[in-house]
Amino acid sequence: MDYFRVTYCLEAPQEKIETVAEAVLLEQTTETPRSVGLRYPFVRHHMMGQIERLEPISNGHYELVLSLPVRGVESDPAQFLNVLFGNSSLHSHISLEDFDLPGAMAGFLPGPTFGINGIRDMVGVTGRPLTCSALKPIGLSTSEIAHLFRELAYAGIDIIKDDHYLADQSFAPFGERVRACLEVAEQVYANSGHRVLYVPNLSGSPDTIRRQAETAQALGVRAVMIAPMLTGLPTLHELCRTELTVPVIAHPSFSGSNNIRPSTLFGKLFRLFGADAVIFANYGGRFSYAADVCAEIATRLRADWMHVKPAFPVPAGGMDAARASELVHFFGVDSILLVGGSLLEAGEHLREKTKRFVEEVHAAAMMLQKNG
Amino acid sequence: MDYFRVTYCLEAPQEKIETVAEAVLLEQTTETPRSVGLRYPFVRHHMMGQIERLEPISNGHYELVLSLPVRGVESDPAQFLNVLFGNSSLHSHISLEDFDLPGAMAGFLPGPTFGINGIRDMVGVTGRPLTCSALKPIGLSTSEIAHLFRELAYAGIDIIKDDHYLADQSFAPFGERVRACLEVAEQVYANSGHRVLYVPNLSGSPDTIRRQAETAQALGVRAVMIAPMLTGLPTLHELCRTELTVPVIAHPSFSGSNNIRPSTLFGKLFRLFGADAVIFANYGGRFSYAADVCAEIATRLRADWMHVKPAFPVPAGGMDAARASELVHFFGVDSILLVGGSLLEAGEHLREKTKRFVEEVHAAAMMLQKNG
Repeated sequence: MDYFRVTYCLEAPQEKIETVAEAVLLEQTTETPRSVGLRYPFVRHHMMGQIERLEPISNGHYELVLSLPVRGVESDPAQFLNVLFGNSSLHSHISLEDFDLPGAMAGFLPGPTFGINGIRDMVGVTGRPLTCSALKPIGLSTSEIAHLFRELAYAGIDIIKDDHYLADQSFAPFGERVRACLEVAEQVYANSGHRVLYVPNLSGSPDTIRRQAETAQALGVRAVMIAPMLTGLPTLHELCRTELTVPVIAHPSFSGSNNIRPSTLFGKLFRLFGADAVIFANYGGRFSYAADVCAEIATRLRADWMHVKPAFPVPAGGMDAARASELVHFFGVDSILLVGGSLLEAGEHLREKTKRFVEEVHAAAMMLQKNG
Repeated sequence: MDYFRVTYCLEAPQEKIETVAEAVLLEQTTETPRSVGLRYPFVRHHMMGQIERLEPISNGHYELVLSLPVRGVESDPAQFLNVLFGNSSLHSHISLEDFDLPGAMAGFLPGPTFGINGIRDMVGVTGRPLTCSALKPIGLSTSEIAHLFRELAYAGIDIIKDDHYLADQSFAPFGERVRACLEVAEQVYANSGHRVLYVPNLSGSPDTIRRQAETAQALGVRAVMIAPMLTGLPTLHELCRTELTVPVIAHPSFSGSNNIRPSTLFGKLFRLFGADAVIFANYGGRFSYAADVCAEIATRLRADWMHVKPAFPVPAGGMDAARASELVHFFGVDSILLVGGSLLEAGEHLREKTKRFVEEVHAAAMMLQKNG
């Protein structure tokens, strides 16, 4: 198949909408006046794309579906983004809504290596959401981080991840921090039988990230985190294809390109580039996504999608631990509930408060399973 | 110095603005309730940052200046973006307006290696804007590209760059294309004495890009192009620091994060991460930036800025060749004027039309110099 379908939302007056749609088509294909492309037989037959649908949605907004050339992408992950929304992203009247992935791209865009089932295997838990917390604030020493880790782990949290501000800073160097956290995880397992999954944050230029991944895996880490909009999505893609032998959780930092529909960016693009779990800003916290936007992100991350494994939705961002039951019911069993600051506020009662959160998630999940 | 200053624009009702400002400060620093950070002496002294200024600008909009911790960044380019605008980018009521670069970061953020003077040395032209055109549409074979190159080069264009859709596709493979264009450039030089600078587009995952840079430089290429928002800004950074021995032109594709002030994204961030010349969507073309936005981008790219070399502004995006004189006067001598489709429309008259464009730029620059 020569083309793949991409859906945009256009804001334009009715009398101009045909012109605007044609302009988007040209922008995402030949990027020249139509007459220039038509001069060359190969371009005319394979690269022009076409308008599949153009329909009004609501006042002044239109849905535009384009067929865009697979030949423009071949197997280059950066070109995939480029053909999808490269220059059109510069227009504030155009948003990227959705895309289909053609079979021809399955080879180089396999999506998550592990996905939901792979992460569940690592954690050893089925039938309920996983609980998750974060090591923060930035500036803690390695031993302070280890202390925090210990409290959260003994409380029964499934996954403990680095704050996304933790990189390889001198006050808690990457290798030292990873070693310390893994050591605590082993102690906790030996003493309590609870196996917690530690997820260090990889940050830096591509080479640094590759070295961090190597170090982490050599030390025994079984999952990592990365913020693909900080590093570039192709860096995530390369890491998954070449270096990583463990699942990867994607962080949404720097992804404020608010003309990409959030469920398309987090639910499809992050997943497609290899994230096994995707953190996003939950409704009712300190970010402004509406509940239905979050539901759509979660739905898309878990949806059956060709060869692409489902990925875990990880709602986060100022979530109150007291909302455990609500969130279990909202996001269902296949989710990771990430609570940070709300637990850390408890100070010396951290372990106790975390334990309560963990128990509430487990209880709500039991209820859900019984009723569902 | 422990802190660097970052300026945001906030949209909020007056009665909430203090709360919103405090929330941004926490988001960009400890990402926990303030009480949590205060518990740790190191965090309290080095990582909390502070509000430097909070002032109303216009109805419902406020300027917020924060001091943010250098210790959070140390020498990690991804963390620099993270501390600058990581999670706050997810809020539609917050835009990133500006930032100062502290001396402590000069070492790992040197900016352009060559800058305006370095590119001028490559081209061998001073005292006027450089002319630039693009090899497109995508789908041309290598010999069709070479033909196009020949026409543009004989017309006297200074810089000929790949279209940003050109990657390593099978219809015009990277190495073959680079070889062909360089060969034509040599022929044109031998026959006419005009030395044109060919700029191939680097695209793909970090490893692919590194290999392409190697290949290109080994073949004799003297400048390259990259789209840092497709590849990730840290990939540009690494490329400049480790692989490239030639100037790099940055392309704006996929940079539609419309809550970063364009002059900050293109004029400062792209420059700071190593771009020697930055392409942006010009006013009066097919994109919607206003003239004053473009002027600000150009001003910032060329501004004196600590250790950071000035970079060339490259206005582009559906520019009509007939505007040559206007653009020379608007952007001044230190600019690269990139015209693509408007020339390519000329078909068999390409060389002639391009020659006219080149002459008009040269003439307008002479006028400018005389009068200025």
